Amino acid sequence: MSWPPEMLRRFSLNQWTTRYWPLPDLVAGCADAGVGGVGLWREPVAEYGLARAARLVSSAELAVTSLCRAGFFTCADPAERGRVLDDNRGAIDEAAELGSPILVLVSGGLPPGSRDLDRARAQVADALAELAPYAGERGVRLAIEPLHPMFCSDRCVVTSLAQALDLAAPFPAEQVGVVVDVYHVWWDPQVYEGIARAGADGRIAAFQVCDWVTPLPAGVLTGRGMMGDGCIDLRRLRVAVDAAGHRGPVEVEIFNEEIWAQPGRQVLARCLDSYAEHVA
Amino acid sequence: MSWPPEMLRRFSLNQWTTRYWPLPDLVAGCADAGVGGVGLWREPVAEYGLARAARLVSSAELAVTSLCRAGFFTCADPAERGRVLDDNRGAIDEAAELGSPILVLVSGGLPPGSRDLDRARAQVADALAELAPYAGERGVRLAIEPLHPMFCSDRCVVTSLAQALDLAAPFPAEQVGVVVDVYHVWWDPQVYEGIARAGADGRIAAFQVCDWVTPLPAGVLTGRGMMGDGCIDLRRLRVAVDAAGHRGPVEVEIFNEEIWAQPGRQVLARCLDSYAEHVA
Repeated sequence: MSWPPEMLRRFSLNQWTTRYWPLPDLVAGCADAGVGGVGLWREPVAEYGLARAARLVSSAELAVTSLCRAGFFTCADPAERGRVLDDNRGAIDEAAELGSPILVLVSGGLPPGSRDLDRARAQVADALAELAPYAGERGVRLAIEPLHPMFCSDRCVVTSLAQALDLAAPFPAEQVGVVVDVYHVWWDPQVYEGIARAGADGRIAAFQVCDWVTPLPAGVLTGRGMMGDGCIDLRRLRVAVDAAGHRGPVEVEIFNEEIWAQPGRQVLARCLDSYAEHVA
Repeated sequence: MSWPPEMLRRFSLNQWTTRYWPLPDLVAGCADAGVGGVGLWREPVAEYGLARAARLVSSAELAVTSLCRAGFFTCADPAERGRVLDDNRGAIDEAAELGSPILVLVSGGLPPGSRDLDRARAQVADALAELAPYAGERGVRLAIEPLHPMFCSDRCVVTSLAQALDLAAPFPAEQVGVVVDVYHVWWDPQVYEGIARAGADGRIAAFQVCDWVTPLPAGVLTGRGMMGDGCIDLRRLRVAVDAAGHRGPVEVEIFNEEIWAQPGRQVLARCLDSYAEHVA
């Protein structure tokens, strides 16, 4: 299939979708296909070298649409909290060097042994207050990602778009926004209100797509499906995000062992076909 | 450990917690322990015989605190819908014969191939309208159970307490209430508002406890933990439900392969110990 140029321009491949595709191959594959951008992850970028990765991507004229990820703000002890904030400042610097407009934040789950969701959620708010000005000075926007409630205990105590928007509200919109990832929010009876509010508040920092498929695998991390293989009304959500004023990229982010086992170019082509059919 | 009588009176053992414990043994075990009630399931009751089960439980002076479960209202075709409603009316009759004040409703997920959550949710509302008067005439209260959003696609499009309360609102409170199961609602940033509203509206039909443990197993159905083994603030939720006016039983409902493999009396004793420590 050949894909329309305006579709390709908006499309961004999140690096974790093709987890084992080496960065230079991924960049070449994306450039050859004519897609607009890539979402990068810190670990493979660090492995390749930060400055070298920045040059590689920019010389291929690909946009870096996001950097994943920092956060994990929910700590039991103050020394750990200091290290976490340092790591987050480092991630902001990395995003700035890569030219990524946003840094995706996974807020963190409950600290081991804790049952105190209120405290964990307050720690997220506190960390944002410490980091937002630092990010703003470097032209990087912090992007709070609400995760599906099945990750509440171990990854992210922020479980809905409304909650993410409440956390973002005290900060200037150019410093803190939210990620709308369909996988995490599709089930929410308030999702369309949340998207409209996110748009009205100027907070949509990123829009990510994949699909919801069952049965979920053990650990539930790698259960995401290719667009169209599941039950999320992807086009309705994309239209809603557009209607809320989002003009930025649409990132494809799929964690799936079967997809990871396939060659990168083949996965990219499949993503583009599925995107054309179910999202664009 | 010996358990205080007022604790035992309020405690109810949901039959699925000791899934393979034969009904007469379960009834004898509960009566010997002095617990107040049992939550029954339709399949083992049918296997034992409905009238016989009713006699068995009442002669042991145990309350039937709930009957699980009916619902599954989200159908693609009208003929199937007719069968589903007939089955629900049958379940209401069964609850009445058992003396169960409530019938637990699992609303159903998306029909195969559908992405239309709005339509599925409207079907739940329509089914309640058909069934509520029938239930009311027989002294049985329909109890809408919001399920954790990880079950949204395949089991229950009702994913929060607020949504369940909205669905219940058009009907008299004695005909339609909601189930507050900590496993399904603990993550919700609005859970305490939801509980307070449920109390104010007179809608708390049942309160069920277990715990949230990770990693989740494949399929995520049997991942529930014993109270205290996970991260849910059980006592805070129980106190909130009490403060909202709930005076009814607290049911222990755990789906867990390891627990199912243990002898019923041992599981019951463990439930009572954990309940005393983490819930009462």
